[in-house]
Amino acid sequence: MSKPLILVTNDDGITAPGLRKLIELMDTLGEVVVVAPDSPQSGMGHAITIDSTLYSKKVVIDPDKGAPAEYSCSGTPADCVKLALQELLDRKPDLVVSGINHGSNAAINVIYSGTMSAAIEAGIEGIPAIGFSLCDYSWDADFNGVDHAIRQIVGEALAHGMPPGVVLNVNIPKTDGVPSKGIKVCRQAKSNWIEQFDKRVSPTGKEYYWLSGEYKLLDEGEDTDEWALRNGYVSVVPTQFDLTAHQAMDHIKNWTLNG
Amino acid sequence: MSKPLILVTNDDGITAPGLRKLIELMDTLGEVVVVAPDSPQSGMGHAITIDSTLYSKKVVIDPDKGAPAEYSCSGTPADCVKLALQELLDRKPDLVVSGINHGSNAAINVIYSGTMSAAIEAGIEGIPAIGFSLCDYSWDADFNGVDHAIRQIVGEALAHGMPPGVVLNVNIPKTDGVPSKGIKVCRQAKSNWIEQFDKRVSPTGKEYYWLSGEYKLLDEGEDTDEWALRNGYVSVVPTQFDLTAHQAMDHIKNWTLNG
Repeated sequence: MSKPLILVTNDDGITAPGLRKLIELMDTLGEVVVVAPDSPQSGMGHAITIDSTLYSKKVVIDPDKGAPAEYSCSGTPADCVKLALQELLDRKPDLVVSGINHGSNAAINVIYSGTMSAAIEAGIEGIPAIGFSLCDYSWDADFNGVDHAIRQIVGEALAHGMPPGVVLNVNIPKTDGVPSKGIKVCRQAKSNWIEQFDKRVSPTGKEYYWLSGEYKLLDEGEDTDEWALRNGYVSVVPTQFDLTAHQAMDHIKNWTLNG
Repeated sequence: MSKPLILVTNDDGITAPGLRKLIELMDTLGEVVVVAPDSPQSGMGHAITIDSTLYSKKVVIDPDKGAPAEYSCSGTPADCVKLALQELLDRKPDLVVSGINHGSNAAINVIYSGTMSAAIEAGIEGIPAIGFSLCDYSWDADFNGVDHAIRQIVGEALAHGMPPGVVLNVNIPKTDGVPSKGIKVCRQAKSNWIEQFDKRVSPTGKEYYWLSGEYKLLDEGEDTDEWALRNGYVSVVPTQFDLTAHQAMDHIKNWTLNG
């Protein structure tokens, strides 16, 4: 039986330690091809490049390792997946994995996440896909301790496939090299960001802003990704791209809409 | 009773005819403040600006009209809403409307849509929000014929508020100035894009790609936004930002995950 083809991408860029770690893990589970952004794309959400050009080239990042085929791309994570599927791969991958993101994509962060947009893009194309994130924003984050959970989740995904219209959002608590307590399948916690804008003046006298903010958890449930992470568990949220709020249909249908 | 405060934004940029039309309509329903991108931001999904600076300035676009307060912003549609809520408005708006987009945001397009990301950003902050799109990509699209449907939907939203966690994705068929047949509350149709990459060589000899593609409807349901639009109706999809695939929870819980 031939090895499964695994496409690996991310949003922190092709040289990010989190991506290198994921490549190393996937290399033990299948044939790996990497198509990843040539520069950091954090916070890109599901952006795609439609009014400008895209560059892509074959690269060698780790010449010392038995390197898989790797391509850098000037576009967003969603662009990388589109380009891989249509142009760069010679067959449809069995799995697309994105990450390991340097920082949490739990709760509302999934909406802003380039990591997850790559997984969702693959999901739209009917390919099993998983986004992995470690809850540590540092470039030097300690990725030891993630191996067992990632191998287990990927192994199950390869064995069982994914329900239609679903991708997985996997977040791993910062554990400083120690494996987490276990894995919890959970729902996305309610949360938001309270923005703060830092207003400054440029050397030429122009006012500008830096966007920053404070993360606010609005959910006390014990069945959420945030609860799992705060209690030392890896969170797995089945995530969909049908955004229809079916539960709200009746409410809106009661409006007077005789267009 | 004071007039409702309505924040108007879009992703085609502050001078787009679709935005000007929406301002004109909202002006009859409330007090309008505009915060919109200074350049087109189509396909930006839910991108936010986290590693670079944001500029914003007060502008006058239509000096002949009794213009509302308007601000342009160098960021994405989601940035515009964040900046408006935290920095530019002196009170929380009663409603955020985004659009009118030049082009469809029905079906899977909602995922890539800057227009809808602005509405979703407001929804995350607990503000009733609606994204409006006309199924005509032309800059010179005919926005006559949209008035009645938009006024009615906005009127109902102001009267009833929005269910928690829900924003509306409203698409209006291209009707060349004729009002549509009516309004349908519906679900997001299953669809995808079959990408085509047009590979070219730059004057300096570098290979590059243009991303384009063909839209493919994968859904024969008559309860979808695509069905409504193709049959001359305005589609209203209640849209959520809790991406949890609750229906898939049991499937994933049956996996062997002893992390």
